[in-house]
Amino acid sequence: MSRFWPTLEDLKVISLDLRLFARSERSLEELAREILRRRGEASVATLAAELLQDYASRSASEKCAFFEALIHTFGPDTARLDEAIAAYQSQPDPKTAQALERAAEPQRQALIRLLNAAPGGTLAIIRMREDLLRLLPDKPDLRPVDTDFAHLLMSWFNRGFLSISRIDWHTPAVVLEKIIAYEAVHQIRDWTDLRRRLEDDRRCFAFFHPALPDEPLIFVEVALTNGLATSVQAVLDAEVGAAQDADTATFYSISNCQRGLKNVAFGNFLLKQVVGDLKFAIPQLRQFATLSPVPGFNQWLQTTHPDSDATKAAESVEPNEPHRELLLSACAYYLTAAKKGMYPLDPVARFHLRNGAVLEQINWAADTSPSGMAASAGIMVNYLYDEKQLFPNHEAFVETGEVQASKSVRGLAKKGEGIK
Amino acid sequence: MSRFWPTLEDLKVISLDLRLFARSERSLEELAREILRRRGEASVATLAAELLQDYASRSASEKCAFFEALIHTFGPDTARLDEAIAAYQSQPDPKTAQALERAAEPQRQALIRLLNAAPGGTLAIIRMREDLLRLLPDKPDLRPVDTDFAHLLMSWFNRGFLSISRIDWHTPAVVLEKIIAYEAVHQIRDWTDLRRRLEDDRRCFAFFHPALPDEPLIFVEVALTNGLATSVQAVLDAEVGAAQDADTATFYSISNCQRGLKNVAFGNFLLKQVVGDLKFAIPQLRQFATLSPVPGFNQWLQTTHPDSDATKAAESVEPNEPHRELLLSACAYYLTAAKKGMYPLDPVARFHLRNGAVLEQINWAADTSPSGMAASAGIMVNYLYDEKQLFPNHEAFVETGEVQASKSVRGLAKKGEGIK
Amino acid sequence: MSRFWPTLEDLKVISLDLRLFARSERSLEELAREILRRRGEASVATLAAELLQDYASRSASEKCAFFEALIHTFGPDTARLDEAIAAYQSQPDPKTAQALERAAEPQRQALIRLLNAAPGGTLAIIRMREDLLRLLPDKPDLRPVDTDFAHLLMSWFNRGFLSISRIDWHTPAVVLEKIIAYEAVHQIRDWTDLRRRLEDDRRCFAFFHPALPDEPLIFVEVALTNGLATSVQAVLDAEVGAAQDADTATFYSISNCQRGLKNVAFGNFLLKQVVGDLKFAIPQLRQFATLSPVPGFNQWLQTTHPDSDATKAAESVEPNEPHRELLLSACAYYLTAAKKGMYPLDPVARFHLRNGAVLEQINWAADTSPSGMAASAGIMVNYLYDEKQLFPNHEAFVETGEVQASKSVRGLAKKGEGIK
Amino acid sequence: MSRFWPTLEDLKVISLDLRLFARSERSLEELAREILRRRGEASVATLAAELLQDYASRSASEKCAFFEALIHTFGPDTARLDEAIAAYQSQPDPKTAQALERAAEPQRQALIRLLNAAPGGTLAIIRMREDLLRLLPDKPDLRPVDTDFAHLLMSWFNRGFLSISRIDWHTPAVVLEKIIAYEAVHQIRDWTDLRRRLEDDRRCFAFFHPALPDEPLIFVEVALTNGLATSVQAVLDAEVGAAQDADTATFYSISNCQRGLKNVAFGNFLLKQVVGDLKFAIPQLRQFATLSPVPGFNQWLQTTHPDSDATKAAESVEPNEPHRELLLSACAYYLTAAKKGMYPLDPVARFHLRNGAVLEQINWAADTSPSGMAASAGIMVNYLYDEKQLFPNHEAFVETGEVQASKSVRGLAKKGEGIK
Repeated sequence: MSRFWPTLEDLKVISLDLRLFARSERSLEELAREILRRRGEASVATLAAELLQDYASRSASEKCAFFEALIHTFGPDTARLDEAIAAYQSQPDPKTAQALERAAEPQRQALIRLLNAAPGGTLAIIRMREDLLRLLPDKPDLRPVDTDFAHLLMSWFNRGFLSISRIDWHTPAVVLEKIIAYEAVHQIRDWTDLRRRLEDDRRCFAFFHPALPDEPLIFVEVALTNGLATSVQAVLDAEVGAAQDADTATFYSISNCQRGLKNVAFGNFLLKQVVGDLKFAIPQLRQFATLSPVPGFNQWLQTTHPDSDATKAAESVEPNEPHRELLLSACAYYLTAAKKGMYPLDPVARFHLRNGAVLEQINWAADTSPSGMAASAGIMVNYLYDEKQLFPNHEAFVETGEVQASKSVRGLAKKGEGIK
Repeated sequence: MSRFWPTLEDLKVISLDLRLFARSERSLEELAREILRRRGEASVATLAAELLQDYASRSASEKCAFFEALIHTFGPDTARLDEAIAAYQSQPDPKTAQALERAAEPQRQALIRLLNAAPGGTLAIIRMREDLLRLLPDKPDLRPVDTDFAHLLMSWFNRGFLSISRIDWHTPAVVLEKIIAYEAVHQIRDWTDLRRRLEDDRRCFAFFHPALPDEPLIFVEVALTNGLATSVQAVLDAEVGAAQDADTATFYSISNCQRGLKNVAFGNFLLKQVVGDLKFAIPQLRQFATLSPVPGFNQWLQTTHPDSDATKAAESVEPNEPHRELLLSACAYYLTAAKKGMYPLDPVARFHLRNGAVLEQINWAADTSPSGMAASAGIMVNYLYDEKQLFPNHEAFVETGEVQASKSVRGLAKKGEGIK
Repeated sequence: MSRFWPTLEDLKVISLDLRLFARSERSLEELAREILRRRGEASVATLAAELLQDYASRSASEKCAFFEALIHTFGPDTARLDEAIAAYQSQPDPKTAQALERAAEPQRQALIRLLNAAPGGTLAIIRMREDLLRLLPDKPDLRPVDTDFAHLLMSWFNRGFLSISRIDWHTPAVVLEKIIAYEAVHQIRDWTDLRRRLEDDRRCFAFFHPALPDEPLIFVEVALTNGLATSVQAVLDAEVGAAQDADTATFYSISNCQRGLKNVAFGNFLLKQVVGDLKFAIPQLRQFATLSPVPGFNQWLQTTHPDSDATKAAESVEPNEPHRELLLSACAYYLTAAKKGMYPLDPVARFHLRNGAVLEQINWAADTSPSGMAASAGIMVNYLYDEKQLFPNHEAFVETGEVQASKSVRGLAKKGEGIK
Repeated sequence: MSRFWPTLEDLKVISLDLRLFARSERSLEELAREILRRRGEASVATLAAELLQDYASRSASEKCAFFEALIHTFGPDTARLDEAIAAYQSQPDPKTAQALERAAEPQRQALIRLLNAAPGGTLAIIRMREDLLRLLPDKPDLRPVDTDFAHLLMSWFNRGFLSISRIDWHTPAVVLEKIIAYEAVHQIRDWTDLRRRLEDDRRCFAFFHPALPDEPLIFVEVALTNGLATSVQAVLDAEVGAAQDADTATFYSISNCQRGLKNVAFGNFLLKQVVGDLKFAIPQLRQFATLSPVPGFNQWLQTTHPDSDATKAAESVEPNEPHRELLLSACAYYLTAAKKGMYPLDPVARFHLRNGAVLEQINWAADTSPSGMAASAGIMVNYLYDEKQLFPNHEAFVETGEVQASKSVRGLAKKGEGIK
């Protein structure tokens, strides 16, 4: 469906604003109560917009007070809940269990659902949760409110509602400026830097939700090269090449965009989709892999081997050539053997191995930026995504925590065992 | 023309099919169990597609068995629920209340959410609920499953996720054929009949959900005329006029399209939005009203005044001219005075009056089709939507059940009081 | 670019109409003169619209008078032309030659270019030429006007300005109804028949010009099958199959849509493009061919062999099984040996062979409709489009008129030599 | 987000390239000759692409040689032309006149039309003409070639083929970077500066041609303000306001984008269209005007009043406050009284007055940039576009050269008469 009424939306937002200004002052809590009272009416959207606008204009402490109200006065109806418990206990069946569930549902959940009816409601709710997440460390009692937000957002940001879009130089500026702002791994300096990352030998894909057409949720940057990309600086500074000469797609950066969607995971869906789409569009690609950081390596060295040569070598601000082999093998050992419970300690390793990827290669001087040096002595690694192996690898990993690694990595890890 | 080669999607669907065919046979229940076990993985979408395809191919009794499994084996974990009840009772606070709510949530809810990750999942879930609704009269025990479906669908079909589209002759055929199929009030005979309803002096608007781009959810048909439209046959047979000469928009048909979205209401949102949009696009429109059926009139007459002249007069197969005044005043009386609890007995009256509309006019020989004669002796009525009055009218109606009616209707109703 | 101002266009057309109604009556010729006088002004678009609207409302004889005016009073300025001839003759150089060309250009060409500035001007000009083409047989003197129309339309409907679109069930109804109307070879009976031709195992592609977004210029219908399609009735009545099982694309119908674009050829461009696009989208396709009529066969038989057995056999209203071999070989002979000048007599053969296709196969009982029987005793043929051979075949054909035919066709043709 | 995987186009371009690389070397002239020979074949598009690619890789002198070939060897067939002249002279009628015109048409026109069939052909032809325009001052003999280019481009860039698009922050970056590059009047420094010009209280509109979707042809920048904007620095530096508070739209910058479209005028069409569109979209706008430079003022002063006080005052690098009145009245006099033939000397005045605008106001310190000071002592003026007056004003202007000016401007001009 492509024929809508574009400028109308703008006008409606305007007229909504004006109407709101004319309204008398009500507190957020009063508004919330009225919204719940009016559920089922078309006018609830206007009230929801009023609450969201009002909320956005409040101070941090007023917002905090609103969250306190959410937890204390918009919980479940306790009398009804007690009755539902009693009914369930006297006759536990699907019907009484369901009545119990409904009775236990806090009213704030219904409220948040109703707020979503406002134009722009979904984004406002995400921003509201961002505020809440900032408060949580100091206000751990608010955690149940956050759990409710997360519960609803997970339902709304279901994979079935997301669409994947290619990001390139034909993408609207309103989206591109967010790609610049949200790139979390390898900073995009300016529009020129961005443009390089969108040339013919690069690809960028993002997930979007239909209610947030201008807001990427997560995006991945891909280099099309001959053979695996092994240095992020090389990727960022390379001359533009030709897509049709490439045999490998290297995913060198993945960024989640919305803090307010914390724990609403799409990374694995995105990678799986992009591998499939690239395979179709560029049939000569033979290999799909990441170029990933090793965020926990240096810290692990310092914690577990505070006085080892490797640890000292890893603290260099430039790639420490004389200790190259030492560091590479220590890193291979770290990634394959250092565990938290039965799974790898390194969070990035955990993510890709859980997806079923293979730890293919460990790359020296792969990220020589200050942050790359500080995190992992400049080392980055490639995780290989072989569609046919993803599922069995994943199953094995989940069950045993076994790290799938290439022969060369296993060899390096062997050497790294004796690190001291 | 904007559709070129989105064959990627097709191919993906195709390859999915093939993969599924290759799989060994598992029962729906086994699949459901595996889907729950794998939540959080990208491959869950493939399993979900497998279950949905498999489900679609099953017989009615197998489907019923699946719903039985949903209610009996995919309920809440009762041990965990009992613990959560105990914990809540020993210390009732937001945290234990929330834990109780989560424990009471049946696993089938999580399952349905995961099914939604499959391509086409949302529509398949709606179709699944249609099957369930058909079963309910004979299997009332399954009602809690339906309540779970409704609960999730209400959350997903939130007003904030819907978009309104104009339906006209530029709309894709795949949507138009559904308009023909779904018109519930005044049947569309063929493409020629449809085309007449989309000419310049007509408007048609529908709500769409982004996950169902080819499926209208609800649509309204509008006639742009000079003065109120007072006969549906006149509307359907009229010569094409010019939109810019009209001063009135009459909504002569509203159809819900998806039985599987029962109780997920959008009618009031749609009418409110269409009034606003038409006002903007055609500034000379002065008046917005419906041309609505009176579905309960004849039945009410038969029940409450089985032997009255009016009842006999109403049973005519053609507009009963000699009893015109009698029937009009009886109908006015029925709409304003016949109540169910504090609200009007007539369901259409209840809907529009609850929205804040005014019962403006009662029209003779307004629907002379067999169904129109049988339902209300051919009478239809106009409910007037005056944006400024909607809210106060609604408030008054909800509180007191008071029917807002024009002077002329009140006059008629007065005469109708003495009906016998 | 996707953001325009949709409803505005409608309104503008409306306001234009009103303005035009207010204007006093001027003759078409006067309007034409004023349009030429005002060239270079923005208001010329309004005048052009006035002329085109006025023209459309005129009678056939008034239109004819307008064309007479075009030829007699909107020719070149003869005094200026005489001067330009003299200047060129006294000093023939690029400058004087160009001045001569400009002086020879009739004013009607400038006029038609200016008419094109009106909203909808391009389509109105095409319709105007349709009127003219209808007049030509009786008014051969008007031919130079038609030549001017053709000259301009060829320039405007340049391949570089056309875009190809897939036509399917997602195509707007406004386009689909034209596909129904314009199918010239194998009539589309209704929307159901159309829908069959747009299922998954069929393809339809059309060329569009950006100024005529709702008007296909030419379209081709394709069947995706296993092996060559050899009967048009089989194609139209077949059960729906799966595109991914097909190895052959058979182009079974090509229709030019706009009589007013006569001699503005796009057929060869369309076929070439569709072969390339299908190859990309459905990589398993191995073979591209037409299923084409042999429009001149029966007539040729009657003319050249009025008393032969073949001619009598060909006059059957049903496939004449006893004379199958006779007719097939006669047809092979006709297609390969019957010439007009150095090229094949059959116009369809001429078209495809000129494009570089090969006459691959002659099919019995391939079009058993009355028109198919009457034209070619029910025979149709496949021309094979092998991308690599198109160019050398084309070159050879143009130079020598040599018909590229498969061994089996050549064998048949040999047998057909002795026909009597 | 509407752009998914139109990689088909890319792939096609790629495969085209490869094919071309494989070809043996032919000179541009040979290619041109073959293209003419093959007109009417689908393969002509490939050859055209080959020529255009080859051309783009040539040196300036080789390009010049190609243009020389165009004028000398791709002119008309002189023998045929001589015959056509003779035929016309012996019997001058529409038919012989047309034959003469066709015979006089140089072959390079047909060639350029055929080049347009290549993918990207239209843009390549525009770039080719840019090269030619650069050569013309040194090679005036090539002018007839340029005239042919202009003739064809005028036909192809007909108003009827152009569409207007709003440029805003949702516009693809590929277009926005061109807006930055092509702004000719008030330079856009960077993306931040651009963004300011696209905020809610600004509008920007461009014309596009369907064959050049990424290339704006001309664009206008508009400030929505309360009352006329009278200083371009104030417009560019203003805080963002609200569109719905504005009563005036001031067009403060108009830029032609394509040098290769010289003399293919769209400025007047664009202004007319934008006034209409803004009126519809923002009904409270009461006034439409430009904020225009006076490019010839200082130069005129220096030429006609080399020693006057005004001339000295105008040479200040900052607004010369003490001589404010003197300069304003001199400028008013210049704009209304200084003529070239019967029309104003100032080219910008000529353009807007010819369109039917009124010289409304003369603004002091309106462009204090170095270029603004150097051109017109910092003065800019407002031309008022009153839709109802445009046509009569235009008519009067064309006929008499009369400058429509407001009372205040006429008063100032009166004072300026005595300038010395």
